[in-house]
Amino acid sequence: VNTALVLAYAGENYHGWQRQLGHATIQELMERALKKIWHETHISGCGRTDSGVHANVYCASFKGLSSVPLERLPFALNSHLPPDIAVFSALAMDDDFDARFSCRAKEYTYFVRTMPGREPFSVRRSYQLPRKLDISAMAEAASFIEGTHDFTALKNEGSPRKTNVRTVFYCNVYETPDGVAVRVGADGFLYNMVRNIAGTLVYAGLGKLSPEDVGTLIEERRRDMAGPTLPPEGLFLTGLTYEKEALDACINAAKARRPL
Amino acid sequence: VNTALVLAYAGENYHGWQRQLGHATIQELMERALKKIWHETHISGCGRTDSGVHANVYCASFKGLSSVPLERLPFALNSHLPPDIAVFSALAMDDDFDARFSCRAKEYTYFVRTMPGREPFSVRRSYQLPRKLDISAMAEAASFIEGTHDFTALKNEGSPRKTNVRTVFYCNVYETPDGVAVRVGADGFLYNMVRNIAGTLVYAGLGKLSPEDVGTLIEERRRDMAGPTLPPEGLFLTGLTYEKEALDACINAAKARRPL
Repeated sequence: VNTALVLAYAGENYHGWQRQLGHATIQELMERALKKIWHETHISGCGRTDSGVHANVYCASFKGLSSVPLERLPFALNSHLPPDIAVFSALAMDDDFDARFSCRAKEYTYFVRTMPGREPFSVRRSYQLPRKLDISAMAEAASFIEGTHDFTALKNEGSPRKTNVRTVFYCNVYETPDGVAVRVGADGFLYNMVRNIAGTLVYAGLGKLSPEDVGTLIEERRRDMAGPTLPPEGLFLTGLTYEKEALDACINAAKARRPL
Repeated sequence: VNTALVLAYAGENYHGWQRQLGHATIQELMERALKKIWHETHISGCGRTDSGVHANVYCASFKGLSSVPLERLPFALNSHLPPDIAVFSALAMDDDFDARFSCRAKEYTYFVRTMPGREPFSVRRSYQLPRKLDISAMAEAASFIEGTHDFTALKNEGSPRKTNVRTVFYCNVYETPDGVAVRVGADGFLYNMVRNIAGTLVYAGLGKLSPEDVGTLIEERRRDMAGPTLPPEGLFLTGLTYEKEALDACINAAKARRPL
């Protein structure tokens, strides 16, 4: 059976999703938990997340016939996982389903704490920038990110992709109790794209870039004009769309447990 | 100069306040930071906190003439401390001031998450008990805890104290977005007293004890009748009173940064 898992994890103690020799990663812990209750298998994740990045919702898939009934699989897996990783649902999928390649859209949210002073309780879950940010300038700049563009200016070097063109469905900036958040939904993301979008919008909020500059730097593919790659601790994967009714319903249920 | 520091720390990565061989503790990290900017000294803390317990506000004191001006001391210390420990203020105090012995009252808050399902983002900052709790029964039981009593029934074995009599100024139960919190203010606490109060009130919320039982078990010093010692991750030190105007103002400012 081809199985999809809906899960979530707090990323501060992990080196991201993807298995890495000598580092604790979510993929490795998930595969190890699956091995304990069934047997060795490869789990495919909806995306790599960098070290320290969080997933308020995540999807993974694997193939094989499990001896554990699907409805008991989340409980069984959780009993072999550390408490900062939680599996919420397991669903049987068509044979051609893959958590990464079947994903139609993702949403990330980047949190910036702008209040002055070090905050021990949020330091691993937001970027601490004790500066005043002009939210309306950020929102105006964000409108230049929406749409279908070549996002070469907003990616870092990583595995090469066939194309740097992506469609950003929305890029919203909103106030939070302790600062600002940037929420981006797209059909796909280039390497470090959200952290670069957040860094570029923060530059707009600081007046270092005008909103129109953001349009220009995308159009002219000027990585050098864009803002910095903000650190991983502010980044959360907050949404996934597969256009598969049962799976999307489970993903939305997982999101609803803790709206970000 | 006798100096008081107002600080806060997220406790999940530490073995509490008090120095312990082979374990990371807040006291050790604070003394090490102070040594880096000045010289070796002993720091006195307002109380021991157990491994994994959090301090939304904490007070420590030390004696000695610092070469760093007091107003720059928080910044200087923070630069030598991990980001989940934050020093907010430093004040000159009278010679007889001691963070532990001068403390007139403390407040702790215990958080219980009652929503079903494992929650990766709050698992180290609240006790996960996916059960329905009767909050009004808990509040009624809490009223028996208020006042001056011998709290032998609600302490665990620890360093012996001259007396087990303490005055609880208030013991309130309130709803939170994901469950219930118990807030207790007292002139002092016995070993594990708040975690035992929380466990006893949870028993009342589950119907395992009646509110009146709580009055009886305190009066009759029946530790065996009381509820369990709840785990450390739900416990936060949330308030301190010294009846020293400037210090109390700094403590209240630290509390206001993140009302719990």
